[in-house]
Amino acid sequence: MRVEVHFTRAEVESATLGEATAVVIDVVRATTTIVEALANGAVGIYPTASAEDAAKLAASLGREDTLLCGERRGVKVDGFDLGNSPAEFTADVVGGKKLVMSTTNGTRAITSASEAKRVLVCAFTNLGAVATAVAADDALAVLCAGQQEQFSIEDALCAGYLIRRVVEGGTGPFELNDAARAARALAEQLTPDQTFLEEVSGGRVLAEIGLAGDLEICGEVDRHDIVPMMHDQAITLSGVR
Amino acid sequence: MRVEVHFTRAEVESATLGEATAVVIDVVRATTTIVEALANGAVGIYPTASAEDAAKLAASLGREDTLLCGERRGVKVDGFDLGNSPAEFTADVVGGKKLVMSTTNGTRAITSASEAKRVLVCAFTNLGAVATAVAADDALAVLCAGQQEQFSIEDALCAGYLIRRVVEGGTGPFELNDAARAARALAEQLTPDQTFLEEVSGGRVLAEIGLAGDLEICGEVDRHDIVPMMHDQAITLSGVR
Repeated sequence: MRVEVHFTRAEVESATLGEATAVVIDVVRATTTIVEALANGAVGIYPTASAEDAAKLAASLGREDTLLCGERRGVKVDGFDLGNSPAEFTADVVGGKKLVMSTTNGTRAITSASEAKRVLVCAFTNLGAVATAVAADDALAVLCAGQQEQFSIEDALCAGYLIRRVVEGGTGPFELNDAARAARALAEQLTPDQTFLEEVSGGRVLAEIGLAGDLEICGEVDRHDIVPMMHDQAITLSGVR
Repeated sequence: MRVEVHFTRAEVESATLGEATAVVIDVVRATTTIVEALANGAVGIYPTASAEDAAKLAASLGREDTLLCGERRGVKVDGFDLGNSPAEFTADVVGGKKLVMSTTNGTRAITSASEAKRVLVCAFTNLGAVATAVAADDALAVLCAGQQEQFSIEDALCAGYLIRRVVEGGTGPFELNDAARAARALAEQLTPDQTFLEEVSGGRVLAEIGLAGDLEICGEVDRHDIVPMMHDQAITLSGVR
């Protein structure tokens, strides 16, 4: 299996994804939130790049069973139903609903993966399920959302944890690019506990706006056994397992 | 001291370097070659983005004591005097000469740092000298050249070695960005020996064109006690130590 990791959007844009399964990671918080929402019964998540697009799409999907979700600078967009805190996305709130979601980095990373053979959504919370889902692939492209155009260490660490699971579970040979090797080395050094997540750049931003509590779910490895997959416009659980 | 690492050019471009000392790293091979050339008596190195610019500048500097150096896809540019192999830059060849140099990633990274307060050139070969030169700075921005737009693990590892030296030698407090923390974690896991360098992406490219021998110098920590500094158009040893 060829395993490539891309730490930032610019690296994704200069890569060729065609034959690969893309795995998108934005631990703090978009992909953690997407996993949480689908685990709690949301029927589909529609990522959009801008808040304006999100509002338009929600109107066209039918506003009564659609929730508008997302943040800018970490804070819920004015007029939206939900922000981007995983704990908001409970079964009571999102069960049976379509979610239109726009976040600063995560949803953009997902849309930038669209040319891949298939696009899966990964966080620490569904690590094992994703590792199983990609085990038979020939080529894996792990796309870290990063923060704006900068490297995010928690996304790189999650990529490293995923690669470790895939390598341990598989027969190989595995061909890793430089970033995949670095991510794997990080996974030997670091653990995604609360202390670690509070010190990463994205964690410090959350603490400043009073949302450090979100980090507890973000660091919970294998909380859910699901694999969200992007297909056409929506991320759902159909077709994967 | 605030310590920021940027793993790729896109990350550098979205950062603010104004008050920082920039340290540019391209282990395989541009910054290793620059250190080697200046240690062996070259009077100055003029980085240029394109091979055409290099030829024009060499003509204007006076062709008799100027050497044209550089590569594209690792191979010496047609008509140039030297490629980008550190071992070519011996005292016999470069002593007393001006070098005009154009490489794929390294010289571009150096020119992209031009807005910083000062710009130093770093490789494993002059690690300790650079660590000493930046010890009293308030802000350090370590720019890894990467390979095209992609992350290079050997540049990240060199950044991590540098940060370890700076932190061990200093009193702090040190404020590291995510990439700096990741680089430092890599430095706890990996060593820049021949086996490591042969497996990095840039090392494999060199092996394909028969230049794997270059990697021996590239991995030699503290081979020289000099700090090349970019000033105006040229990289020299003046003004640093």
